[in-house]
Amino acid sequence: MTRLGIEDEAFIRGKVPMTKQEIRVLTMVKARISPTDVVWDVGAGTGSMSVEAARLAGQGHVYAVERNPEGVSLIKQNKEKFGVDNLTVVEGEAPEALNGLPDCDAAIIGGSGSHLSAILDEISARMRTGGRIVINCITIQTLAAALDYLRAHEIDFSYEAIQVQINRLQAVGAYDMAKAINPIYIVTGEKK
Amino acid sequence: MTRLGIEDEAFIRGKVPMTKQEIRVLTMVKARISPTDVVWDVGAGTGSMSVEAARLAGQGHVYAVERNPEGVSLIKQNKEKFGVDNLTVVEGEAPEALNGLPDCDAAIIGGSGSHLSAILDEISARMRTGGRIVINCITIQTLAAALDYLRAHEIDFSYEAIQVQINRLQAVGAYDMAKAINPIYIVTGEKK
Amino acid sequence: MTRLGIEDEAFIRGKVPMTKQEIRVLTMVKARISPTDVVWDVGAGTGSMSVEAARLAGQGHVYAVERNPEGVSLIKQNKEKFGVDNLTVVEGEAPEALNGLPDCDAAIIGGSGSHLSAILDEISARMRTGGRIVINCITIQTLAAALDYLRAHEIDFSYEAIQVQINRLQAVGAYDMAKAINPIYIVTGEKK
Amino acid sequence: MTRLGIEDEAFIRGKVPMTKQEIRVLTMVKARISPTDVVWDVGAGTGSMSVEAARLAGQGHVYAVERNPEGVSLIKQNKEKFGVDNLTVVEGEAPEALNGLPDCDAAIIGGSGSHLSAILDEISARMRTGGRIVINCITIQTLAAALDYLRAHEIDFSYEAIQVQINRLQAVGAYDMAKAINPIYIVTGEKK
Repeated sequence: MTRLGIEDEAFIRGKVPMTKQEIRVLTMVKARISPTDVVWDVGAGTGSMSVEAARLAGQGHVYAVERNPEGVSLIKQNKEKFGVDNLTVVEGEAPEALNGLPDCDAAIIGGSGSHLSAILDEISARMRTGGRIVINCITIQTLAAALDYLRAHEIDFSYEAIQVQINRLQAVGAYDMAKAINPIYIVTGEKK
Repeated sequence: MTRLGIEDEAFIRGKVPMTKQEIRVLTMVKARISPTDVVWDVGAGTGSMSVEAARLAGQGHVYAVERNPEGVSLIKQNKEKFGVDNLTVVEGEAPEALNGLPDCDAAIIGGSGSHLSAILDEISARMRTGGRIVINCITIQTLAAALDYLRAHEIDFSYEAIQVQINRLQAVGAYDMAKAINPIYIVTGEKK
Repeated sequence: MTRLGIEDEAFIRGKVPMTKQEIRVLTMVKARISPTDVVWDVGAGTGSMSVEAARLAGQGHVYAVERNPEGVSLIKQNKEKFGVDNLTVVEGEAPEALNGLPDCDAAIIGGSGSHLSAILDEISARMRTGGRIVINCITIQTLAAALDYLRAHEIDFSYEAIQVQINRLQAVGAYDMAKAINPIYIVTGEKK
Repeated sequence: MTRLGIEDEAFIRGKVPMTKQEIRVLTMVKARISPTDVVWDVGAGTGSMSVEAARLAGQGHVYAVERNPEGVSLIKQNKEKFGVDNLTVVEGEAPEALNGLPDCDAAIIGGSGSHLSAILDEISARMRTGGRIVINCITIQTLAAALDYLRAHEIDFSYEAIQVQINRLQAVGAYDMAKAINPIYIVTGEKK
């Protein structure tokens, strides 16, 4: 493996919003990605998560599902830039777009449109015991829906959730001032 | 490499305070630890950082410096538990205890007693260009001292710093309540 | 008026959890309590909010609704301690307990059991235009329910919401360490 | 007294940065401003703190010290807009500008240039026992300097400090997303 954690500036991003490095790495950790894992990245955006996952699952494979053509193009560019061969871009909308994929060991949900419950049903049906779903929630409604789902399916999943807030110090002359980054909730379900 | 990110419960810890998983992983990322790196972990505590670093620097070596005998014992136990051979425990106080070690590619400072400036001088003198020092600061005074040092040595270092605050959701009956974890500053200096 | 903001230690509290001073004052501000207001404090707990409101609404009146007998007793003790005559304790469960009260200018919801929607219906029916409901949410589910209600009743209410996180610095020898306090969401609805 | 807490939008502000309502009110509370207090507002900026303080100290007086002419003009406009007669604008730089003022019961420091220590000396010499200094710190260096001063003068002062971080929920279609506001430290010294 090359080293852990790619800097934000290294990715090709266009105008698609991108998860910050710190959140990207914490997501990988919560997903417990192992070298041989099959990983689904749903709502892959720029592909920054997919690339990071592909490097951690060097003998596995990552499927990046994205419905937005601009995102699909960016994922392909980032795949090429970082030379990760074990990454396949799937253009389409989840959960339908997940149909043809091999079953997964880990799943990351960065964006779910309004289909979160259907996507979680599909992942749940096709994930091995001990596998992990990580849902990055930037809205209260997505967070509440994720918690609702995992609570309603407690036979299938245990879960944990954290809120992460990061302030970056910015040098202004002789002073360092905190610049706040919008917080995010990371919800993790583990398949029983 | 085995997978990234060890759970807190996996470590043997006694009563020594231990950095939480999320902070441990972010520290590794900021240190940009590579497979062949020599890493100094100063104020290693339970050795949780050292073990995590030793797994990332699988072909390199980690030196865990700790003055507290209880800590030294815990580091040895954790080294054994995780089977990391490339980890050497050094009992003693920095900066003196750093004297005999090979030069480093990365350094982590979890505790510095009141010798932060002297420790940073020693690291600075013996770290390669592009290497990184990561200082975890739980007090305002250590944070201010770290920023002061890096600003005063801007010929030798560039730096960045973040504050990380994590709230863990706790299930209480039908509800999830946020439980706050004390925030920490992570200051990173890169050797020019 | 006497001065703004009572210290936490000044209240009689028993084992009932009490909102911290900072949150108490922000709640008052969001409720825009004026000197002549009638205020309902639903789930009044120790009565710390009620006392603070009663001092701000010196020519108005505050009704503290609480179902827990221990809470009722504490509210009465705090009423006496702070000498606020314009505070009436109502033992009972909302929304039923609200029936006999005069209509309100402002309402504070510190605890709602599982009746949030019915309580908001009652307040909505009996609050003047321009009046404000402030809901302190310590769980994601209450937050989500409050937002749902206010969104579903956008003909009747505009709303705003903040999350407040406070870290208190604690002196430990020559150092100041941050001690995190659990965050809270403050949701405010304004009657159109 | 009119009601507590003026909305941000109500102030005339130009391009001068202004403390947010939540921080403004918490600052008032920490300063324990009473109706008859003499208050110094050092580095008054737009005067938003001064106006809020003048309403709380209705039978007292507030002196707003500001060196920036644009700020001075804004303070005068806000004084007029809110009709607070007990507010005097003092153009000049602290600590010199404090010379002619009557001794104070409370002091607020929103900006100190680089003269924090000299300003605190002057306030200390001219504040009554039990009076309070509140220092709003947006930089680590100001925070560290404030703590250093209060620790070095523990014969004269006790102190407390909090960090406040607020996230404002923003409605985006059917969702509420957290938008982070830069955190601030509020340091309070009480004259022994």
